[in-house]
Amino acid sequence: MGDEVVLLDFCVSMFAMRARVALAEKGVKYENREEDLRNKSSLLLQMNPVHKMIPVLIHNGKPICESLIIVQYVDEVWRDKAPLLPSDPYQRARSRFWADFIDKKLYVASRKVWGTKGEEQEAGKKEFIEGLKQLEGELGDRPYFEGESFGFLDIALIPFYSWFYAYETFGNFSTEAECPKLIEWAKRCMQQESVSKSLADPKRCMSLLLIGYRTGC
Amino acid sequence: MGDEVVLLDFCVSMFAMRARVALAEKGVKYENREEDLRNKSSLLLQMNPVHKMIPVLIHNGKPICESLIIVQYVDEVWRDKAPLLPSDPYQRARSRFWADFIDKKLYVASRKVWGTKGEEQEAGKKEFIEGLKQLEGELGDRPYFEGESFGFLDIALIPFYSWFYAYETFGNFSTEAECPKLIEWAKRCMQQESVSKSLADPKRCMSLLLIGYRTGC
Repeated sequence: MGDEVVLLDFCVSMFAMRARVALAEKGVKYENREEDLRNKSSLLLQMNPVHKMIPVLIHNGKPICESLIIVQYVDEVWRDKAPLLPSDPYQRARSRFWADFIDKKLYVASRKVWGTKGEEQEAGKKEFIEGLKQLEGELGDRPYFEGESFGFLDIALIPFYSWFYAYETFGNFSTEAECPKLIEWAKRCMQQESVSKSLADPKRCMSLLLIGYRTGC
Repeated sequence: MGDEVVLLDFCVSMFAMRARVALAEKGVKYENREEDLRNKSSLLLQMNPVHKMIPVLIHNGKPICESLIIVQYVDEVWRDKAPLLPSDPYQRARSRFWADFIDKKLYVASRKVWGTKGEEQEAGKKEFIEGLKQLEGELGDRPYFEGESFGFLDIALIPFYSWFYAYETFGNFSTEAECPKLIEWAKRCMQQESVSKSLADPKRCMSLLLIGYRTGC
């Protein structure tokens, strides 16, 4: 009997994109169920009763929640293809540290860029650009964050690329002017089919902020 | 040449306690450097320039930051003794999920219990007790969170036990009355030397809140 894999998804969610990229990297076939976040399915409420949030990966009936935990799970279960986390414990710790930084700092700042105005927005914009520059520093001259091949930290960050257009429009700045090497890295990632087919259309992300949540992509 | 292991520590920090318990579980010898958080050492600022926070584990000169990442690192490097994370990917994902829940929900609620007043404190107290009950539900009838032996999720939660006295005093409630099984679990954990020698004195935690930060234990 094969694996039954279901992803409770929301197209433009950067957290859901992480799960989609990881599954695509591993070549895992799965059923995608797009959620209506204004009217969450009983399956979502049952599978993630604590946070009631997407993404949820349901593997043979068992739920795995939280995007970075899903990516690690996918890496640990489908071991035979495309390792995502480095094998060295110190490099793994570094990858986890920066992925955590993305969630704790970069994501929080990004919400201020489009969700606030005036001084708060300016502060958010500054934090966001500063966070991107720190990540650019961590990337250094490597093609991908973990070295020569696409991996865990690339997956943690690349979904933001779908949102840059919206952030730039709301915040009136150019990510490429601020962080040219990071944009080169993003374009390199987009050459991976696992990424290009999993990321949401930037205009779709923008329209979500302008007209509110809706389902489907 | 042996390993050089240094922990940048702060006695009553629950995040630092996690690192101390993990190192003790593995029997790792290390140098403990207590930080003065009002006057952070240049070593701390150099080793954790992003967050400038303890704990930092410095292993052969390389820094590992963020307590849960440190615990995983310790588990991955010192593999031969006391495995902390379960070996099954689904169980690992569950452990990571609840550890993340502790940081995102329980810790945030705990700060409201002692750091706010009135309605906000009441809301924090309610969230804190609800979070503990959810964790008690996850524990079920097992002796430890991951089963028969003390592990990762036990380490993530047990430092709160040092703080219960302070929370109970500020919030006027009894954790034991609310979550008797969780207190049984905590007492069971305290029978481990790795825990009893690593946890801070509850009165010391309380005095920190009453008289402010100071160093040494």
